[in-house]
Amino acid sequence: MIRHDDASLLKALIAPESVALVGVSGSSGKLTARPLELLQANGWQGRIYPVNPTRDEIGGLKAYKSVRELPEGVDHAYILLNADPALEALEDCARTGVKVVSILADGFAEAGEEGRLRQERLVRIAEEAGILLIGPNSTGVVATTPGFVCTTNAAFRAGGITKGRLAVLSQSGSVIGTMLSRGKAQDTGFSVLVSTGNEATAGVGRLGQLLLDDSGTDGFILFLETIRDRDAVAAFARGARARGKPVVAYMIGRSEEGQALSVSHTGALTGSARSVSAFLASVGVREVEAFESLIPVARTLSQLAPVPSRPRSVTVVSTTGGGGAMVIDQLALRGVPIAGLSDASRAKLAAQGIPLGHGKLVDVTLAGTRYDRMKEVVSTLMADPETGMLLVVIGSSAQFNPELAVAPIVDARADAPAGAAPVLAFPLPHAPESLTMLEAGGVPAFRTVETCAEAIAALFAPVPDVEPVAAALPAEAEALIAVLVPGTQGETTSARVMRALGVPGPLSVVLAPHAELPADLGIPYPVVAKLVSADLPHKTEAGAIRVGVTDRAALMRAIADMKASAEAHRPGFRLEGILIQEMCQGLGEALIGLTRDPVAGPMVTVAMGGVMTEIYRDSAVHPAPVDIDAARAMIAQVKGFALLSGYRNRPKGDLEALAHAVAAVSALAGAARIQEAEINPILVRPEGEGVVMLDALLSVVTDGL
Amino acid sequence: MIRHDDASLLKALIAPESVALVGVSGSSGKLTARPLELLQANGWQGRIYPVNPTRDEIGGLKAYKSVRELPEGVDHAYILLNADPALEALEDCARTGVKVVSILADGFAEAGEEGRLRQERLVRIAEEAGILLIGPNSTGVVATTPGFVCTTNAAFRAGGITKGRLAVLSQSGSVIGTMLSRGKAQDTGFSVLVSTGNEATAGVGRLGQLLLDDSGTDGFILFLETIRDRDAVAAFARGARARGKPVVAYMIGRSEEGQALSVSHTGALTGSARSVSAFLASVGVREVEAFESLIPVARTLSQLAPVPSRPRSVTVVSTTGGGGAMVIDQLALRGVPIAGLSDASRAKLAAQGIPLGHGKLVDVTLAGTRYDRMKEVVSTLMADPETGMLLVVIGSSAQFNPELAVAPIVDARADAPAGAAPVLAFPLPHAPESLTMLEAGGVPAFRTVETCAEAIAALFAPVPDVEPVAAALPAEAEALIAVLVPGTQGETTSARVMRALGVPGPLSVVLAPHAELPADLGIPYPVVAKLVSADLPHKTEAGAIRVGVTDRAALMRAIADMKASAEAHRPGFRLEGILIQEMCQGLGEALIGLTRDPVAGPMVTVAMGGVMTEIYRDSAVHPAPVDIDAARAMIAQVKGFALLSGYRNRPKGDLEALAHAVAAVSALAGAARIQEAEINPILVRPEGEGVVMLDALLSVVTDGL
Repeated sequence: MIRHDDASLLKALIAPESVALVGVSGSSGKLTARPLELLQANGWQGRIYPVNPTRDEIGGLKAYKSVRELPEGVDHAYILLNADPALEALEDCARTGVKVVSILADGFAEAGEEGRLRQERLVRIAEEAGILLIGPNSTGVVATTPGFVCTTNAAFRAGGITKGRLAVLSQSGSVIGTMLSRGKAQDTGFSVLVSTGNEATAGVGRLGQLLLDDSGTDGFILFLETIRDRDAVAAFARGARARGKPVVAYMIGRSEEGQALSVSHTGALTGSARSVSAFLASVGVREVEAFESLIPVARTLSQLAPVPSRPRSVTVVSTTGGGGAMVIDQLALRGVPIAGLSDASRAKLAAQGIPLGHGKLVDVTLAGTRYDRMKEVVSTLMADPETGMLLVVIGSSAQFNPELAVAPIVDARADAPAGAAPVLAFPLPHAPESLTMLEAGGVPAFRTVETCAEAIAALFAPVPDVEPVAAALPAEAEALIAVLVPGTQGETTSARVMRALGVPGPLSVVLAPHAELPADLGIPYPVVAKLVSADLPHKTEAGAIRVGVTDRAALMRAIADMKASAEAHRPGFRLEGILIQEMCQGLGEALIGLTRDPVAGPMVTVAMGGVMTEIYRDSAVHPAPVDIDAARAMIAQVKGFALLSGYRNRPKGDLEALAHAVAAVSALAGAARIQEAEINPILVRPEGEGVVMLDALLSVVTDGL
Repeated sequence: MIRHDDASLLKALIAPESVALVGVSGSSGKLTARPLELLQANGWQGRIYPVNPTRDEIGGLKAYKSVRELPEGVDHAYILLNADPALEALEDCARTGVKVVSILADGFAEAGEEGRLRQERLVRIAEEAGILLIGPNSTGVVATTPGFVCTTNAAFRAGGITKGRLAVLSQSGSVIGTMLSRGKAQDTGFSVLVSTGNEATAGVGRLGQLLLDDSGTDGFILFLETIRDRDAVAAFARGARARGKPVVAYMIGRSEEGQALSVSHTGALTGSARSVSAFLASVGVREVEAFESLIPVARTLSQLAPVPSRPRSVTVVSTTGGGGAMVIDQLALRGVPIAGLSDASRAKLAAQGIPLGHGKLVDVTLAGTRYDRMKEVVSTLMADPETGMLLVVIGSSAQFNPELAVAPIVDARADAPAGAAPVLAFPLPHAPESLTMLEAGGVPAFRTVETCAEAIAALFAPVPDVEPVAAALPAEAEALIAVLVPGTQGETTSARVMRALGVPGPLSVVLAPHAELPADLGIPYPVVAKLVSADLPHKTEAGAIRVGVTDRAALMRAIADMKASAEAHRPGFRLEGILIQEMCQGLGEALIGLTRDPVAGPMVTVAMGGVMTEIYRDSAVHPAPVDIDAARAMIAQVKGFALLSGYRNRPKGDLEALAHAVAAVSALAGAARIQEAEINPILVRPEGEGVVMLDALLSVVTDGL
């Protein structure tokens, strides 16, 4: 098996010296003629080899019968043939040492059993040859700076592809063209655009990792239908965070209808939208609400960041009361803290003859839109240590008099000292010239109030830990899990594993079936008594459980009664023992769960449990591992836990102990045999008195699965 | 008091023959010089009278010292003076019979006590003279067709104001300019734009009513900070519905920060955002989520409507899988039903050599983007009786080959028979030419996936009743209410009023303080017993309530015990009686409330009650009156009532009886003395067994308030 190092794969991906266009058409206008036309039209300087057995020459270049006949082993190939011939061409690429191959054809994983087998073969060939395979079902790869426009996407036919510093990785092939045209309309260009298609081997995570150190890329835009390489996405996102390169994503499939489409559309396995969003947030990928926000949010995050020493708030200055109020409304709805004018700035500006009012909005309408006044206001607020970030909302002057309201912002920013607050702007009218002037002056500027608010909210979004610390699975738990029989475990076994993780259960003893009741159980009365028997799955129906048993005599009677009623319910049942448990009371109950999402991986859930949780969908989801801080944050997200947090002077529950239990259960994600785990309910006692697991369940996969 | 008829006011508002510009400046560039410059620049043909005592001539026109000196009584005046001189000018207008007056100045209701008094004087003058007063704090009135651009808003300085058929009524003066410039950028013009300012007399409701019959206006856009004339807004909205003219609104103040700003900004009294939204929805005003959606949603609703005989669903055809999936996702998230291809259309198109797949998206990517194929698909689907509405999502061909993908849509629409399904389009790339071509061809077209989805959701939004039927207040209830002492009423009095409305309470008797306990109470045991006394507001603390009293002997003991413990708690308390009540049990509880929102008027609330309702804010709000259908719809909105609707095989509660109780309580809105009313809790018994009010509260205002 051949392995190329990542640096040489990156070079072959976006800056190859030679490319083979396999199956390229010589008939202008045909889809498969486009890559050659586009490479030539964009003045790409590398060597292009058309491969087409029916032609001697295409686009003024000698055409070859097959990849095997090329005069050199090329860096990059784009295979434009149908599925089966594409497989043969890939084999030729493997034999001749091609490093990166994109495939246009569909008819693979998304196309039934036949397609699935075809895709398996594709993967085998690529892996053995160390080929970085893009697709299949990929509209290609574009690197704008060298003019490497190796795509079938018609959008790139437009004259003058806008170059820029954002990379686009899209699972939809048409969206790379949409990004190009919509980016151009807002003065935003791109460094690299890749249509990742079916992602048979390389997903957005792997490609993102390769592009991390591309010096031409400052940030990433992901258009997602699913996630196929979760761990690579996590590593990519963390690497991007470490390099200060934002990753912004838009994901379809948030509705059930959309989920169904993303399956049929590119053969994606769609995870639960909520789990995927929790995963993306946990690794620091910023999901945007609106497709429209992808470009402005990515651009803003790649341009500036909050100054760590400054407050996490935004000060809004406006030359239009209505516009300012609208922006503050949208910021506040997204949870962005808004600061008014500080006393120091108010005094300083009043001394300059600029009197300003009180309130959340710094309204300069009355001060008049004049260059000197605007510059004084912006400079003063940028320098004010109480300003976290400054947003200027510009009224009609943005449309007709940019020299009055826009130029002073740009100039104030240029003159600002190091460490000044970042400044952003939103012109209320349609004002393309002002937008261009602001962006050119390093002031992020927005076209709509919604994208403005979403970008600023993204700047203030909490930053996740770079790498969560996985709690180690205790040796005792590991040993217990190793010997579990596949399938769903009983309550006793499940609880034993949970106890080994450190989740406390009630005080309990198990008596042998016919043992004498000891004088001292070591458990204070009242107690709960249950018959232990695999033959009695439904204890209540079998009469095999008694709660609130108040003393020894009552317990002896209860045991006898239970045996009799279980015998009546299920004659000949096999009694394994009698479980006597502490009778626990708490302030409330919770549920802790561990599931494995097919896309987003192991996920931990915490909720209040019970029917209200179902109806209100009131739960928190976080990818495992969940450390104690993440567990506390999850509990804080569950609205119902307000009842255990001193709501209306109610007594507080021990939510800290619950957080420890959540973190402990999360360690089960490290045990590959555990498919699913749940504690439901876990009793939350008063603050300082801990939690008690009342019931637990484990599901173990068949070995070797 | 003079009264002009509405037709002459409308004419003076948007098509006056003469206008006085009072306080107009002769110095070009000054704000107060603008109205004259704009009227002249836009070729308005009416007579303009500058009024300025310091000048003989302004803009080539003779200037007058005062309105009183004008050679005629003008139709319309715009007063550009400061607050106090503006009042004097208004008096001159009143004396000379001016019909419509706009006032620019601030310093009225929003400016403390002095301003409030000034505004009162303003209102008095206007009302006595029958003047339609716009503002104060108004940037003026624009009617585009005659070039009547009587505004100080700088945005109207741009050459070529786009004319159109939508009217804008905005409480923010800057927003009329924003609408103009943003509309122009998307080929949308306006008929009339009014900055309504402080709305001292005429609010958006009154102005909307006047404009209802303007033949140049097909729809309305409202930019709201509050509502000052609720009943007029309701009448306007219903009038617009009757005429098929949509009313679309964007309201700021959805966050607390935004609410605070709308108060400080124009002196608005802001109601609860939720109540205002419920009110707008109830009268058929469509609120948009995003400011960006105002224009496209209003334009779409004024252009087309669902065909009543067709299904309420949309069929999505796409030449781009990713784009189509994205649109379907956004439609589904907004609750729009999506239909796939019908069998009939599939067969018809297959016969034409256009094979199409199954699924929610009609993906024509493989069929190829060709004129004849696209036209065949669009024509077939428009004619198909199973198509409710048709949306075509166009890929990159919209950018480069509108003749392939855009022209066939326009042509199919032109050739479609009467009653065909309406067609709309969304080009995925930035494609301004295609948008223009589509709009010119009568096909509503959208710039963003979000506005597209929001507009289609608006087309399918439920249509409220034109005029809800108010339940009459029963004579008995009216009589009881008439004699209530102002203040908060006790439980017994409140319950008596509620019973008179038809809300059942438990069986009960009140015994005289020292009466013998009758042998037969007429109430089955167990019962609840309470001491009735104004001196015991907290019955539980006073030991003055006993529940679950099982028989006559126990009841006698309970009464004696309660008297003793109340005496100990509050020596010398005055006992008014002993209340014996049926002990009721139900499947769940609910809360019914009536409040009076300062902005949105009387509002009815229904919820489950209790702490979970508070935490999850799970309630439904609807303006009174609430008829039985509206009450049922409200109950369906409360998530928690799932527990009483057969959730997971639970027994069903009598939600129908609850709906009747909600409608009954809503009738209290007609009793002006009732400030607030609540039943909490009302017990919901099993289906068919009704509801029982357990506690009630009424708050009565001081007479004359």
